[in-house]
This record gives sequence, structure tokens and C-alpha cells, in this order.
Amino acid sequence: MTVEKRNAFYAQSGGVTAVINASACGVIETARRHPDRIGKVYAGRNGIIGALTEDLIDTSQETDADIAALRHTPSGAFGSCRYKLKGLDKNRAEYERLLEVFQAHDIGYFFYNGGGDSQDTSNKVAEFSAAAGYPLTCIGIPKTVDNDLPITDNCPGFGSVAKYVAVSIREAGFDVASMAKTSTKVFVMEVMGRHAGWIAAAGGLAAEAEGDPPHLILFPEVTFDESAFLAAVKRCVDTWGYCAIVVSEGLRNADGQFIAEAGTRDAFGHAQLGGVAPVIAELIKQQLGYKYHWAVADYLQRAARHIASGTDVEQAYALGRAAVEMALAGDNAVMPTIVRTSDAPYAWEIGKAALGDVANVEKKMPREFIAADGFGITPACRRYLAPLITGEDYPPYRDGLPVYVRLRNAPVPRILNSEFKLA
Amino acid sequence: MTVEKRNAFYAQSGGVTAVINASACGVIETARRHPDRIGKVYAGRNGIIGALTEDLIDTSQETDADIAALRHTPSGAFGSCRYKLKGLDKNRAEYERLLEVFQAHDIGYFFYNGGGDSQDTSNKVAEFSAAAGYPLTCIGIPKTVDNDLPITDNCPGFGSVAKYVAVSIREAGFDVASMAKTSTKVFVMEVMGRHAGWIAAAGGLAAEAEGDPPHLILFPEVTFDESAFLAAVKRCVDTWGYCAIVVSEGLRNADGQFIAEAGTRDAFGHAQLGGVAPVIAELIKQQLGYKYHWAVADYLQRAARHIASGTDVEQAYALGRAAVEMALAGDNAVMPTIVRTSDAPYAWEIGKAALGDVANVEKKMPREFIAADGFGITPACRRYLAPLITGEDYPPYRDGLPVYVRLRNAPVPRILNSEFKLA
Repeated sequence: MTVEKRNAFYAQSGGVTAVINASACGVIETARRHPDRIGKVYAGRNGIIGALTEDLIDTSQETDADIAALRHTPSGAFGSCRYKLKGLDKNRAEYERLLEVFQAHDIGYFFYNGGGDSQDTSNKVAEFSAAAGYPLTCIGIPKTVDNDLPITDNCPGFGSVAKYVAVSIREAGFDVASMAKTSTKVFVMEVMGRHAGWIAAAGGLAAEAEGDPPHLILFPEVTFDESAFLAAVKRCVDTWGYCAIVVSEGLRNADGQFIAEAGTRDAFGHAQLGGVAPVIAELIKQQLGYKYHWAVADYLQRAARHIASGTDVEQAYALGRAAVEMALAGDNAVMPTIVRTSDAPYAWEIGKAALGDVANVEKKMPREFIAADGFGITPACRRYLAPLITGEDYPPYRDGLPVYVRLRNAPVPRILNSEFKLA
Repeated sequence: MTVEKRNAFYAQSGGVTAVINASACGVIETARRHPDRIGKVYAGRNGIIGALTEDLIDTSQETDADIAALRHTPSGAFGSCRYKLKGLDKNRAEYERLLEVFQAHDIGYFFYNGGGDSQDTSNKVAEFSAAAGYPLTCIGIPKTVDNDLPITDNCPGFGSVAKYVAVSIREAGFDVASMAKTSTKVFVMEVMGRHAGWIAAAGGLAAEAEGDPPHLILFPEVTFDESAFLAAVKRCVDTWGYCAIVVSEGLRNADGQFIAEAGTRDAFGHAQLGGVAPVIAELIKQQLGYKYHWAVADYLQRAARHIASGTDVEQAYALGRAAVEMALAGDNAVMPTIVRTSDAPYAWEIGKAALGDVANVEKKMPREFIAADGFGITPACRRYLAPLITGEDYPPYRDGLPVYVRLRNAPVPRILNSEFKLA
């Protein structure tokens, strides 16, 4: 039986992470080992937009060494985008255009590396190409710092943010403990996670013994109760001399408003340019009088490849590799997943989910992962999170700085040369 | 000739750093190698306050392993404080009390680990004890993330903050570059340095080739020129597609006001809870329309032992060791310094400065270190800064988290038992 050889398309989607390029590395290195089946791997410049506008990158022009360096390079090497394809009924032209571009470049494999929206898109592209009679193998590759995809035990990108947050609050906690006698008594660190508290919860890993920072965690899942919170802060300072707090950007008040947003103007008499950490810190200062410091890590947390989780890097790579292997094995409209087979010692293997089961399902943090008082994590949560931050996977350094690769990103000559107007 | 054996006092002062404990490690390990000359090393609990209140820590009760672990533990292991002794004419009682406590505990060596104020204090204590006829060897040990002590080529603590800032803006720069096509075009990272731009300048090390982030640096030494800045941001986005900015917390407007403070309320129509990064970001959004993200690293930058500069760790330790060696060699009222003997390859040795020459002199960043347009660093600045961030010195990890030591910090039994009221 002869199997035809076709090109592959790979794109990165949505917010980037410290390890999404490790998945790209897994895809490309694995494809290069199968030259009989996969011709060139084309990447979308700036994600799916690159496909729609026929702006493709020829990854075959990158050296093996540069592709290998993707494994330790944060961010999206080919550019990502925030661009969600509409439903087939809303904008059929986008799907037709994708197939037009794929056909022009003999693309038979579609690898889409992203979160829930991207898996939904992959699924629709699979359905559309099947209906159109265009042979296309569509494989999703999970990625999201938010850890909110279903079925897979965890999402690549999350473990490294989790490690960054746990390491950072431990270090800042040590700092504040040193200063608390005469100076800063409260430290507030804001972390990502607008809809779910996975990242905030990870901060809790830093607290291994009673009194360890962080002392309090504010989750988006728990309505902010000002008086209960202030009482907890005071108890903490009275007991330990200081208080280290992790707060999720998604923290809301009883009216469902984000604490970080303008709604806080009236409550505390200040307008805000964004950031829940300064609001919480100022509330503590006003009500309890403690001197504070606050930090907003923002992109630093998801870009921090220098402190990436070794487990996360390994899984990101393995999922990229598995995506190609599944495609070659004849799978379609699936996403490789992480299946946990043991908590301690931690063990995992690659599983498989139908894209239809992944699309549009958000994995929430279980309520039993949050302590009864709403300010901490439970042992069950710790059991789940702990393995995800294990292992260090340091990038190479030159002159004191991590060496991250910038690819050539050479364009694939356009064949269609027709313009496509993005929605 | 018999030399008497006396106890030593060591205290940490002011804001702590990622490597001040490495200096403590150098002091204590070196003292332990000279049991014939130095009895016990007592540490001040919460710095000099511990001496004034006779709240001393007996470091001889710590194991060798725990003392060794100080080398990789950030923060101040014995507690620090923000408490400046007044002049002799203002509060003679404080100096008398110090000598009373030192005499009670047979302390013949005073090691004070801090910035400019602390070196001034050390000098005054030396003068006072000499005048009082109390034999006390006073040695300062430099420490400050601000890098603002004179004579010494650089200050322990600075190199590690510098490395953190350069690594972080490189990583965030990669992230923004990935997202810029459809999303975030501008990233603003706020760093410490209220009076001098040393830390902000260090961000510039991340930019090795034209177009590398950070593209713009805002220094406290350069009055904020809104229109020149906005034009530079626009040029940058037009040229590179995005703009990564490092801003010093000490940035000021033409009236000398901190941009971070309330004075900005009128200019941009928003009140602020602190933080110059959100003000700059919002200004860009309003005037140029670019989507932004911003980060305020705050304590994370000075506590980040996980990404400490190997050079910084080595120098911090060496200065602690040198302080003890100078004391044993008969020096008094001096501070060991870093003397640079070569830029490339970088070479340094330990020097010595009289405390009187260090006290109350602030090392400013030379104007020739700032680019002509005011938004970057010059080759001379790069030559100076580059060696200070070299080398990685990773702490040990357990379960994915750095293992930092918490000492027993056992109290020395009080002898005086008299109260002393802090000023």
C-alpha cells in the first residue's frame, strides 16, 4: 500500500506560554523523522491568520539546532493571534478560504495548538473539510496557562506558570518576613486567571508548613468578603508577624464585578488603571494600617521559561510529538491528552480525546480544592498540583542571559496571491 | 603575643536582597574558622534593633549545613529593619546603649551589612567606641540593590536584581512579539530605583541586537518628556511591530513629581494607587491606542534568588569573608569593596574603603551611561553592567520548589534585662 506524502500546517493560537514552543518542537522534530509521509511543515505566521492570508512560514528552512532550541524558548516562535473563527453558519467564507490555501499548498495535516476556542475551531475545520471532500487530518494540541481544558489531566503552559507563582511567593514571603518588624507587613501578589483559580491555587504549593507564605489566597471562585478577609489578614499578622497574599485577577465582589475594575472606585475612593493587587493592598492599609508592597507579574509569569517546570516542558513536547504520531496513525479530529496514572510517585501517559468532546467545555476548579474558609487550598488540591511543578529545565545561558532562539521564519512563496479580508 | 578572643555582632540593615544572606554566610563561616580569635557570632534580631533591645541571636546554635544554606537563601535570615541611628548630638543614648549591650556580651567585633546609612552608622559607632575607650572593631559590609555606594565598583544585591530585570524583560519581550499582530503591542515593566536608574539600565542588557526588547527605558535621571516618549513608542511599533518598555519607579515629570504619584491624576484624569507602569501604559493607550500589558515586579525582583547572578553571590560571600579577615588583621572603620581590574574578561578583587569616605556619599549613574535620546544605555554602560549578571547559581530544589533555610534563631540569654525605648 502506498501512502501519499503531504505537507503539514501548524499554528499557535491565543495567549502564548513558556512551553508552547516545546510543543512546536515536538511537532516539527517528529514530522522530520517521517519524510516519507510528511513533506514540509508550514507554520501560520501569527497563527490562523497566516493560513487565512496565505502568509505561511517554511519551517524546513530552519536548522535542526534552531528547531531543537524551540524546546527552551518561551512565547510563540511563529507568532500567535487572538482570532476566533466564527461558526460555519456565520462565516463560511473563512473555512472555504482555509481549504483553498491548504489545497494550494498540498496541506494534508492541520495541527492547531491552543485552548478551548482553538480546539473548537479544529473540530469545525475537520467537519468542514470532510463535508467538502478535502482530505485533511485535524489534530488539536492543548495549550493554556488557565488549565481549563476538559478531559486532559492538565494543560501545557499551566505547570510553568504554577511553578513561577509558587517560587515567587515563597521568595517574596521570605523578603517580607525579614522586613516586617519595622516596615512592610503585607505583600500582595496578583496572578492570572480571570475565570478560574488554578494559577492562584498554585501559589499555595509554597506553603508546606503552618505559617509559611502565602497565608491567604483570593480565588475568583470565592466572592470577596471584605470583613472576613480583613479579619484573616489581622489574625495572620498577629500570629506570624506578616501576611503574604496571592490574589487572582478574577476576584469579584458580591455583585459579580471584578475588584480590579472601576466598581472599586466608590468603595475605596480611588479610581484604578487596572490591577486588583493595589486595590487589596490599599484596602488593608486603610482598614488595618499595615504597610504594604504589591506586585503584578502579568506576562512575566507565563513567559518565565527560565523557571519552567520540567514536567511541563516534557509534556508540552510529548503532546506535540503525539499529535503527529496520531495523525500518521490515521486519527482525525482528536487531541492528545495527559492521563495521570498516579499522584505519588507521579506518573502520566498520553491519551486521546475527540475534539467534539473538548470544544466548548471549560474545566472548573473543584470546590473541594478550596479550603473551607475560602483562603487556601486543600490536601486534594495539593495532591493534584504538586507534580505539575516538579523538575527544573533550565535554558542555556550566554553572558548571564538565557539564549532564546529567533527563527528565520522564511515565507512560503504565495500561490494564490488573492487577498482575503479578515472578519 | 596573646590575642584576646571576643564575640562578634552581625546585623542586616535596610531592604533585603537575594544575596545578603550570602554575606552573612561569609561572615559566620569565616568566623568559625577562627575560634581562637572569635568566640560566638551573635546576630541582631531585626538588625540593629536587636542590639539596642538586647535581642540577640546565637548563631553558634545553627548547624554548619544551615549556615552554608544561607548562601542560597534570599532575604534577611535574622530579620532586617529600617531604623537609622540619629547623629551623636541628637541621640547619644543609642550609642551608649549599643556599647552597654556589646560590653555585657563581650562583643569586640561589629559587622554591619547594609547601604549608605548603615555605613554611616558603622562609622559613628567606631568613633563613639574609640572615644569611650571601648575596644570595638567596626567593619561595614556593603549591600544594596540600588548600587549607590561609592568607591566599591558595585554593591552586592544589585547584580541579581539586574539579572532578574534583564531576563524578565527579554522573556516578556518575546511574549509580546508573539501577540502583537492582533493583541498586545506595548508592554511596560516597572522596576525599583527611586533615585537612580541602575536597575532600569540593567534591563537594557537584554537588548543585544537592533530591535531587541527592551526598546525604551525610562530613567529617574531623565525628566519624563511625554511627547518625545510617545513619538518613540510609535516609531518602535511602526518599525518592530511592538514596544517593550522598562520604567524606573523613580521617573519624574518636569516639576520633579513622581509620575507614579497623585500628581498624575490631573494629567491623565486618573487617580493612582501607586505604580508608574500603569500610568505609562494608560497614557500610551489614550494617546496612541495600542493595547497594553504592564507588570510591577516589586519585591519579586530583589528576592529572586532562583535567578541570582553567580557573580553577585560570589562577591556577596567574599565581602562577608573579607570583613572578618580585615577585622582579624587589625583593620577598623573600614568596608571591604569590589575593585574591578578588567571589564572583559571580567576580573575583580577585594579592596578596602574607610567608612568615613563611604558614609553619606551617593554614587549616581553617570550621564554618559544614558543614550543621547534618553531612552537607552550606552556601550560604556553595557561594559560596566554586563559582567555583574554573569553566572547562574541555582539553589537546590525539592518537589519543584527552591529549598531555602529557616534558621533556628535561638535567643542569647539576656544579661542586662533593662528596657530600651527605641526612638
